[in-house]
Amino acid sequence: MIIGAVGEFELIKRYFACPEIAQIQGQHTSGLRGIGDDCALFDIPVGMQLAQSLDTLVEGVHFPVHCDPFALGYRALAVSLSDLAAAGAEPHSFTLGLTLPSISELWLKEFSEGLTHVAQKFRLPLIGGDTTKGPLTLSLQVQGLVPKGQALLRSGAKVGDLICVTGTLGDAAGALRAVMAGDTPEDCGDAHIKYLLSRYWYPVPRLSAGQWLRQAGATSAIDISDGLIGDLRHILEASGVGAEIAPELLPTSFALNQNHGRDNALTMALTGGDDYELCFTIPRELAQTLPAKLSDDCPITCIGQVTDETGIVRDSQGIPLIEKAYTHF
Amino acid sequence: MIIGAVGEFELIKRYFACPEIAQIQGQHTSGLRGIGDDCALFDIPVGMQLAQSLDTLVEGVHFPVHCDPFALGYRALAVSLSDLAAAGAEPHSFTLGLTLPSISELWLKEFSEGLTHVAQKFRLPLIGGDTTKGPLTLSLQVQGLVPKGQALLRSGAKVGDLICVTGTLGDAAGALRAVMAGDTPEDCGDAHIKYLLSRYWYPVPRLSAGQWLRQAGATSAIDISDGLIGDLRHILEASGVGAEIAPELLPTSFALNQNHGRDNALTMALTGGDDYELCFTIPRELAQTLPAKLSDDCPITCIGQVTDETGIVRDSQGIPLIEKAYTHF
Repeated sequence: MIIGAVGEFELIKRYFACPEIAQIQGQHTSGLRGIGDDCALFDIPVGMQLAQSLDTLVEGVHFPVHCDPFALGYRALAVSLSDLAAAGAEPHSFTLGLTLPSISELWLKEFSEGLTHVAQKFRLPLIGGDTTKGPLTLSLQVQGLVPKGQALLRSGAKVGDLICVTGTLGDAAGALRAVMAGDTPEDCGDAHIKYLLSRYWYPVPRLSAGQWLRQAGATSAIDISDGLIGDLRHILEASGVGAEIAPELLPTSFALNQNHGRDNALTMALTGGDDYELCFTIPRELAQTLPAKLSDDCPITCIGQVTDETGIVRDSQGIPLIEKAYTHF
Repeated sequence: MIIGAVGEFELIKRYFACPEIAQIQGQHTSGLRGIGDDCALFDIPVGMQLAQSLDTLVEGVHFPVHCDPFALGYRALAVSLSDLAAAGAEPHSFTLGLTLPSISELWLKEFSEGLTHVAQKFRLPLIGGDTTKGPLTLSLQVQGLVPKGQALLRSGAKVGDLICVTGTLGDAAGALRAVMAGDTPEDCGDAHIKYLLSRYWYPVPRLSAGQWLRQAGATSAIDISDGLIGDLRHILEASGVGAEIAPELLPTSFALNQNHGRDNALTMALTGGDDYELCFTIPRELAQTLPAKLSDDCPITCIGQVTDETGIVRDSQGIPLIEKAYTHF
């Protein structure tokens, strides 16, 4: 349904300035002034720092054309929050730049419902943004709080640290392969493929895990958006270290193994992006404090250790592993 | 020049993580961690609030197809900063979401030079962002600092306050009319049209004026992006008041008057957007503290007063003035 008579301001109010998303009460958002002025305004508690991350998602590049708007809104915010998780930050608020080819009330309703679902779950209000006409594109800036100087960075890994990951890896890559084979969430009768697709569309930002790891003394962290090897390499380069990992230890889901076989599953776990699990390093002596899982759906698996061979990832036989990080161009 | 082999990460480093733009030292950005981690990190001084604004600009909607990349980078950041000016905030930092159809090194070089020019002038570092492939779109989030609870808002105008504007109005509208008539900055021999085009492409965010007005006791402010009447109406609605303005008092430039005649110039000043001057209200008793100009290029002109007729703008004869605020849909 195209509603030509609804202007930009009315549109913003109806779907993005509504109390359900614009007035979510976070732990540190009392006194915040959000949508409705030239700027959003807020202060942050003494001793805390603001952590910010901006992600842009383009139709046909980062998500399929004509995808489900609820899933799109959900995934866009969840994916952005994953960067806060990697820093060990607590969500504070977010802004949205939304470019739309036309105004469809139904699309906006479902998109804002997906966005609101995640915003409410993690208690971060939408405090500002911009809606414009053009090819479907989302820019989300999420912001969180972290005690001053204590954010998890990419640059703190030390030789001898253990390398670990949260959750299972490769599920989203398995889902994409299923989609390319013609399956869709709607017509897919196979519970395993349904599970993989849910992992792609409804990723869980590992926010509580990130905060736990920050307090537990993890030395570095990154979220796995582009593939384990490529993202781990960012840690290695920032820290001036190398890595030895045991691919056979990589955690893969039952659904992925069943659908693609364990060998393919391991390849997807090594190189597939879009799972938004965390990869982190932790001193060996602290590893005993790590529980086997942080929650029912968040196992923690040690997959290797940090070496002194700057920027190189080898397997346990010493063979270099090649990244296939996702680049857009 | 299309460079297919240059990946996303290299591209970011070369043009946006360079010291010229990523390491600009602002007044309050010591200790900031910017590009290179999952999140940018910073704290803000005790007693200050963060003011944020997000703008999205789409090729063919907000700026012409194939426009000069230096001018685009310059204008995009200047326009975004105008929102901080309206809040009376001091620039702190900004983030950039850049969507590009392909990588052209020349384009990127010139675009980043335009962006850097403004960033250096107003001392705000680029602290994070995202580059993606897709239709040319920019999302800029600027952030500034303002003493807690002292930001200029839209909601503080009181009956009897004077209504004032900075600079001259209608120049950008005059420039757009010239462009539509086929003139371009390159081939335009007429100094007046050149001036109008420079006002469109190189707007001056009224940052020092905004900070001055905040300290001087202005009761509300907005930047004029969509047209004086439409933007003034945002103040009126937020404040629950009305306005009487004298169109004949509107400040228009010599160049605009010469090119379009004073009558057309006044229409452009009333309804044309894109000048990014400030419209503000100030108690009558404080108006005597207002200088005639805040700098050589920033005259201040009183154009009317606040009335009790909520949301209505009338001229001095009592005739309602109709807004033509810009909406994209």
